[in-house]
Amino acid sequence: MIDEPSRKRTDARRNRDRIIEVAGATFAAQGLDVPMREIARRAGVGPATLYRHFPAKGDLVAATFADQLDHCVATLDAALADPDPWRGFCVFIEKVCAMQADDRGFTAAFLATLPGTLATDFERVRDHHLRRFAELTRRAKQSGHLRADFVPDDIKLLIMANGGIGTESPAASRRLVALLLQSLQAHPTTPPAPLPPPVLPPPRPFP
Amino acid sequence: MIDEPSRKRTDARRNRDRIIEVAGATFAAQGLDVPMREIARRAGVGPATLYRHFPAKGDLVAATFADQLDHCVATLDAALADPDPWRGFCVFIEKVCAMQADDRGFTAAFLATLPGTLATDFERVRDHHLRRFAELTRRAKQSGHLRADFVPDDIKLLIMANGGIGTESPAASRRLVALLLQSLQAHPTTPPAPLPPPVLPPPRPFP
Repeated sequence: MIDEPSRKRTDARRNRDRIIEVAGATFAAQGLDVPMREIARRAGVGPATLYRHFPAKGDLVAATFADQLDHCVATLDAALADPDPWRGFCVFIEKVCAMQADDRGFTAAFLATLPGTLATDFERVRDHHLRRFAELTRRAKQSGHLRADFVPDDIKLLIMANGGIGTESPAASRRLVALLLQSLQAHPTTPPAPLPPPVLPPPRPFP
Repeated sequence: MIDEPSRKRTDARRNRDRIIEVAGATFAAQGLDVPMREIARRAGVGPATLYRHFPAKGDLVAATFADQLDHCVATLDAALADPDPWRGFCVFIEKVCAMQADDRGFTAAFLATLPGTLATDFERVRDHHLRRFAELTRRAKQSGHLRADFVPDDIKLLIMANGGIGTESPAASRRLVALLLQSLQAHPTTPPAPLPPPVLPPPRPFP
């Protein structure tokens, strides 16, 4: 027999999961601009329920992108474990940009300053791993492959540029990332490696 | 003595100029998403007046960005006149990206398919000059400086990437553009030319 408090906990957990699922799909398709009340409506919960789980929108964003952050961290772990730090660096950038090319909310979630308590934890984790990325860049420079004037914060520049491509054409993102990685080499190869094929995103709908 | 029809024409011209001025400032600051009725409100005219001048939003965008298109064309003329086609190519990309880094509406205005009659003219002019840009890329390849697998449509990829930087930091745009131009060289210099300093845009406001 299921007691009342246990049923409530199950309901609450189900609501939370449902909200995160809906927020994930919504942010991926439309970016972070979608209002909280619209997320609540789509998840089929009242605004009070939404705000009980996520007091600030930054908290909802942090919870929604937690899996993606984990995925980025695992990718960074693999890059740091690669005996060739330049290869590790390139694969890391390629994978992060590929995740981003699949999700319109990614850029804002990973670059914005998020208000909220959960959000503060999210940012602390993110910033910790940015310091580990700095270690990867240090090794890639030491190996002689990454140009000396690259700074770790340049990853934000790469992510912003890749974010400009949007999510309609992963192939266009791959071509851009290949160009960017070639430009980051300390001793560029002559002639440069061939690029992925030119595939442009479809024209954007006019607002 | 000023006759009535003449006064009406003067008023109409003044309204049109005012609408374009307001639309220019609004699109530059907020992008093209701002609704027509909001442009009318800010310009101090009724929606009927706005639509009499610009039956479709694409028409308003075309009229608003006409000066920028002229500027791009003049920049392209100068690039095609440069005896060094690679230098012409680089200066053209730098100048177009600098214009874009100053105006949030630029990317959409130059890449979107715009509905409207004026808009159709705007697109015809734009596409004519894209063919002239293709001639510039042909010469820059022939000179041995531009990589052979660059395609003229890649300018859209560059503009989208630069658009991802936003308008808050022209310095970040310059650094990105310097990276991209280095990646486009057929025979990259070893070591690469130093980059403009790393200056990131301020964190974006959270939506």
